[in-house]
Amino acid sequence: MSDIARAIAAYVSSRRPEEFAPAVRHETARALINFFACAIGASRHATVDAALAAVQPFAGPPQAPVFGRRERLDALNAALVNGTSSHVFDFDDTLLSCAVHPTGPVVAAQLALLGQRPQSGADFMLAFVLGVEVEAGIAEAIHAPHYAAGWHITGTVGVLGAAAACGRMLGLGPEKLAHALGIAATQARGLRAAFGSMCKPFHVGHAAQGGLLAALLAERGFTAGAEMLEGRRGFAEILGCGASLAEVPERLGQPFALLRNSYKPYACGVVLHPVIDGCLVLRESRISDPSQIARIALEVHPLVLELTGRKVPQTGLEAKFSVYHAAAVAFVRGAGNEEEFSDAAARDQATLALRARVSPEAVASLGKDEACVRVTVQDGSTSEHHVAHASGSIANPMSDAALVRKLGRLAAPALSSAAIDRLVALCRTLETVPAAAALNDAAAAAA
Amino acid sequence: MSDIARAIAAYVSSRRPEEFAPAVRHETARALINFFACAIGASRHATVDAALAAVQPFAGPPQAPVFGRRERLDALNAALVNGTSSHVFDFDDTLLSCAVHPTGPVVAAQLALLGQRPQSGADFMLAFVLGVEVEAGIAEAIHAPHYAAGWHITGTVGVLGAAAACGRMLGLGPEKLAHALGIAATQARGLRAAFGSMCKPFHVGHAAQGGLLAALLAERGFTAGAEMLEGRRGFAEILGCGASLAEVPERLGQPFALLRNSYKPYACGVVLHPVIDGCLVLRESRISDPSQIARIALEVHPLVLELTGRKVPQTGLEAKFSVYHAAAVAFVRGAGNEEEFSDAAARDQATLALRARVSPEAVASLGKDEACVRVTVQDGSTSEHHVAHASGSIANPMSDAALVRKLGRLAAPALSSAAIDRLVALCRTLETVPAAAALNDAAAAAA
Repeated sequence: MSDIARAIAAYVSSRRPEEFAPAVRHETARALINFFACAIGASRHATVDAALAAVQPFAGPPQAPVFGRRERLDALNAALVNGTSSHVFDFDDTLLSCAVHPTGPVVAAQLALLGQRPQSGADFMLAFVLGVEVEAGIAEAIHAPHYAAGWHITGTVGVLGAAAACGRMLGLGPEKLAHALGIAATQARGLRAAFGSMCKPFHVGHAAQGGLLAALLAERGFTAGAEMLEGRRGFAEILGCGASLAEVPERLGQPFALLRNSYKPYACGVVLHPVIDGCLVLRESRISDPSQIARIALEVHPLVLELTGRKVPQTGLEAKFSVYHAAAVAFVRGAGNEEEFSDAAARDQATLALRARVSPEAVASLGKDEACVRVTVQDGSTSEHHVAHASGSIANPMSDAALVRKLGRLAAPALSSAAIDRLVALCRTLETVPAAAALNDAAAAAA
Repeated sequence: MSDIARAIAAYVSSRRPEEFAPAVRHETARALINFFACAIGASRHATVDAALAAVQPFAGPPQAPVFGRRERLDALNAALVNGTSSHVFDFDDTLLSCAVHPTGPVVAAQLALLGQRPQSGADFMLAFVLGVEVEAGIAEAIHAPHYAAGWHITGTVGVLGAAAACGRMLGLGPEKLAHALGIAATQARGLRAAFGSMCKPFHVGHAAQGGLLAALLAERGFTAGAEMLEGRRGFAEILGCGASLAEVPERLGQPFALLRNSYKPYACGVVLHPVIDGCLVLRESRISDPSQIARIALEVHPLVLELTGRKVPQTGLEAKFSVYHAAAVAFVRGAGNEEEFSDAAARDQATLALRARVSPEAVASLGKDEACVRVTVQDGSTSEHHVAHASGSIANPMSDAALVRKLGRLAAPALSSAAIDRLVALCRTLETVPAAAALNDAAAAAA
């Protein structure tokens, strides 16, 4: 094994729960609440229905729930389906440093494994923090050339984070854990051409499943090559476009990536959030009738047009990648929830009409969480609003209460309010929960 | 969907069995006999033991056998394990045009699906020929930059071939089949850094499983992006290093890739075969005592040193990538079977001593299936043999009888000779077999 794979594995296999500051534990609770909001919220989406229908005839013992539903699957298939559902709405958490959605691939794998490998809330949390740390550390080392080359980074590094977390749960020593990272590295895949299709969330589920499989294989003595993470023809050389992982080991936990995690108030790409903020403010304060709008001029960070430049989205998934849709639907419906990025919303006539009047302009001096919205109505008068830091950004984070409301709103169709309260309480007190599997019980629909 | 994905899907979904010439059917029989030889032969290897132990606690209904063993798994896990076992010995078939081992990923997926989707031998053969055709067509379009970049091409294109074959077995129309190709494209992965470890054969199993999953998902309405195979940030752009797939559709079946397939007489990388041929000839005719050898000078194609330049292999898997080991063991043991590339053979003292006396030299004017072996013994006399076309090459193919002997030798520890005879007969008459699932029955160990 390479020195870097060994160093990462040694770190992951030797940390102890008491090393984490309260802030890390607090952010873990927030990440889990947000994860369950997304996964349960999307549990009846066509993407999840299709994935579940495809794997059910082949599934093993009912070891883990499909969150928000009554079906149970074996752990490998549960990781696939729950990881997928966590990303369907594009509503999951984001590390702005590297565009990774960190929690989904890691915790979907971990939760699936709990039936076979029960453990305390504290140990579960430890493995989660470490899984995210490996995932984020590698992502931050490679993200710029990697993402530009066309890789969906949550898929490609997610499998490494899931392998680290599951390897820790399985109690692998550093040698086997290093092999697990190598087995995960050679499963890294996911094309950005998938954006706007069901394959985007599939990448997250596949990463969760692949990371779990990597850890299970390593546990049984399966071997990886010594240079698979970095080294000749390895992950960093090929998918990381030659970026170095040399500094990853020393940066682990310095500080923990979860402390720079962010959560989305709107169900679309995070780059669209300042636009939606600005549109909602103007709608509330100035624009009582959106049909009167003649033009919506946006000044945005250049990434907005690169990532979300789709002018005529046909489906809800495509609408999440359309700044035109995001601005228009915010004015028409006064919100940016999943309903605003549904197939029906993408076809809504009032939104379609307004989309054609949206004119975004890339301004290189703007921050990624910054935007300016200028609306001209038919009488020629204009209103303008500048958003310095979008809701959900590091500078303007979602509050704990807002995250709990997000879970409540998204999970309400699937779970009773008592179950949702129980799930929130478990997430918030996880370090003292005797059996982490209580999370699975709370997040499944009543039989 | 892109025009190319649509064109490939239209081709696959509309072909009929009677379109194939007898030579294609004959080559299908040879490919299947060789596949079963490899998969059954490796069925007790540590790689297969570990993979099976890892997935068994999660496996679903016993839908398909693990070839050469008594265990049965659900189809998705069976595809994973049988695809893996087919490549463990590196003894599988090779398309020399693109370095793809075509049969493993495709037929491991197909055989696994037969329990859920029974079909005639003729239909099964049709799907197989088409799966290989898609796999080979795409591989031949991208292989030079793709392989050089560090991708293990059997893993990356294998998933596309498996998706095409399984999609055909499921009766998908062109639209769903195009989505299946897209879902497969975004699962393409596998690093050459894995060579010499258990992850190399794992790539083949993972490709079989991923292609089957892609077809099953597409059947249920799961969608891929329009440009995932070729197009911006798609498979050909990213993994194919920008190679064009434009000519793939028109080349399908012109002529069929199976007609240029080759089979290995020796259990190692095909580039080593002319070296082994030459060493065996000299051993037979001139060198009665290998301990008298002072020097083995080899002239080889440059790829030999690039792919198999490992001087001191520690394991059997590593020995398959060592021209030093291959030449030495051929003189010491007089063969190039799996036993000559086992962990024990890699540590054998006589072979170790002789390895140090092997001096390979790359000669750009030599063909890939050509080599010259010159042996100097301790009295200073030399013997030389030139191999124009290695055994198993297109110009000097393995005979049908040699392939049957290969299956007989490799399968003997697992199956009775009656079962082996039945398996050979089924492969040879597949187009008239009413239920292709008879292959699975014949290739499993008796309960």
